[in-house]
Amino acid sequence: MHGNQRDAYAEAGVDIAAGNAAVALYRAKTAGWRHPNQLDALGGFAGLFAYPTPDAENVLVGSADGVGTKILVAAALRRYDTVGQDLVNHCVNDILVTNATPLFFLDYLAVGVLDPEMAGAVVAGVHEACRRNEVALLGGETAEMPGLYAPGHFDLAGTIVGTVRRSDLPRKESVEPGDAVIGLPTNGLQTNGFSLARKVIPESEWGAPFDGATLGERLLAIHPSFLEPVRAIRRAARIKAMAHITGGGLLENVPRTLPDGVKAVFDARTWSVPAIVGEVAARAGLSHEERYRTLNMGVGYTLIVPAEEAQTAALAVPGAAVVGRIEARSAGEAAVVVEA
Amino acid sequence: MHGNQRDAYAEAGVDIAAGNAAVALYRAKTAGWRHPNQLDALGGFAGLFAYPTPDAENVLVGSADGVGTKILVAAALRRYDTVGQDLVNHCVNDILVTNATPLFFLDYLAVGVLDPEMAGAVVAGVHEACRRNEVALLGGETAEMPGLYAPGHFDLAGTIVGTVRRSDLPRKESVEPGDAVIGLPTNGLQTNGFSLARKVIPESEWGAPFDGATLGERLLAIHPSFLEPVRAIRRAARIKAMAHITGGGLLENVPRTLPDGVKAVFDARTWSVPAIVGEVAARAGLSHEERYRTLNMGVGYTLIVPAEEAQTAALAVPGAAVVGRIEARSAGEAAVVVEA
Repeated sequence: MHGNQRDAYAEAGVDIAAGNAAVALYRAKTAGWRHPNQLDALGGFAGLFAYPTPDAENVLVGSADGVGTKILVAAALRRYDTVGQDLVNHCVNDILVTNATPLFFLDYLAVGVLDPEMAGAVVAGVHEACRRNEVALLGGETAEMPGLYAPGHFDLAGTIVGTVRRSDLPRKESVEPGDAVIGLPTNGLQTNGFSLARKVIPESEWGAPFDGATLGERLLAIHPSFLEPVRAIRRAARIKAMAHITGGGLLENVPRTLPDGVKAVFDARTWSVPAIVGEVAARAGLSHEERYRTLNMGVGYTLIVPAEEAQTAALAVPGAAVVGRIEARSAGEAAVVVEA
Repeated sequence: MHGNQRDAYAEAGVDIAAGNAAVALYRAKTAGWRHPNQLDALGGFAGLFAYPTPDAENVLVGSADGVGTKILVAAALRRYDTVGQDLVNHCVNDILVTNATPLFFLDYLAVGVLDPEMAGAVVAGVHEACRRNEVALLGGETAEMPGLYAPGHFDLAGTIVGTVRRSDLPRKESVEPGDAVIGLPTNGLQTNGFSLARKVIPESEWGAPFDGATLGERLLAIHPSFLEPVRAIRRAARIKAMAHITGGGLLENVPRTLPDGVKAVFDARTWSVPAIVGEVAARAGLSHEERYRTLNMGVGYTLIVPAEEAQTAALAVPGAAVVGRIEARSAGEAAVVVEA
């Protein structure tokens, strides 16, 4: 959805206030008309469209996204096979929070100078992730735009469409004190935090050894698809709400899936932070608050389940853990707390 | 679809051979797997997805596109309200060739520095065109990417999803010698030819008076939506095949809608060329062949109908005309001929 980046980003050249102002303007300028089949979105991860009629039981779910400035790391390292997978997996995860089954994907690749091998590698990555998620690659556009993109630079964005039965949509209203939060582990920055990461880890260091590989390789760790883990947990437990931990981290994404009157309290000792994420946080000198508002800090996706089903749910996926609990929230309290 | 720009573009910095090579690589790299619900595309304007099952009568139609380097004219003139309409209308027209009813749209706006007023104006244009086409604006992404886009530069892309009954898909096999080609008039370059246009009409001239406005304003003429004209013709005549005249002009787009053994013969005296399109063609010194392979030359959309229904069809839309006829084609003959 039309989102924006956050706090620690200001000094990395990304303007949060401008982002919020833009979103406010979007709302104002689009308020006059709405398609009758369009439904309220769940936390803004994806849009919902009742198909074929406004009261249809099947709902189509759509989401558009890019890979942000992770693209500049890939371009500098000439690694073109991973960003397509980042993009598809990111989009799959965004609609997954509605319990949607992904159906098809379309990509947009824009380049300054078209290098067929490079473009072929990008699309091969898109195709590979589509195949793994059983999503049709329905189409795409490759645009050569000299003057807009510098030679060697490119941008990559995409749109996913999925479907969910209305009765299968998560109901965040059912989330209540005592529920457990399951966290799915991730392997790196996913596709957020790269303006900051590029500022604190300059390109000159990307070839340096780090965590069994190089800094550059760890920066490009492929954003995981959480489709299979979420399906496994769905078979094991009732899922009340889910969040994909994108830009804004736990502090801004989890509240989108909580009803009024509750908060999520995370225990940071229950999961580990990927080395590359810790490195970015440390080099940037992020405060506790900034870490969890800027980076995923190792939790890629959260699921809220009843307490009595939490252990079964966590055991359904290797590496998954009970990472937090839902508690009553008083007026003025934060919706998400991370205890160190 | 993954297309590419054409001939006269080489000297404007757009590489046709690279585009064709990229498309060949896409095919090679995506050949190993295909989703069972994915259908053969009609001429490549849009992808088709049988929903909910592979034999479903209703088919979803998707297409992704950008506005190309028309974006650089808009950015230079700080006119942000039109490119969103260009984008939505372009996408509506692309799926219209399948007879699809557009359902929803998602946009991707990427900027170097986020100016809320500018982003708000772009999204307002997207929303306005969605409203006029009765398409839901289901979501979108705004990405601030310092280092990839220069300050003041931006890119805009989008994806449309529509639906059509399988029995309503045009059948190009039914096109036969004697059929008529109806042309819908357009108002300018639509969203193709801008790398060439910017080369032959430099920015310093965009404020100069031209055709009752300025050169810049005529360059930014909003790409029309052909949704209502096509609906009007559909009520008046049987439509056998349609083409949206995008990059590649009549010479490359119309053949995508023709069966083997026939050609389309256009009579260029039956329609008029918008002044701005003629200006670009003249300044670039394009040959007859190059004009019709690079620019739309005033025909924005073509429909093939039985000869006996041609006059009724053309009269259904102001400005529409019978612009050509279908004839038998011998081996080695071109699929499209434009008689001056």
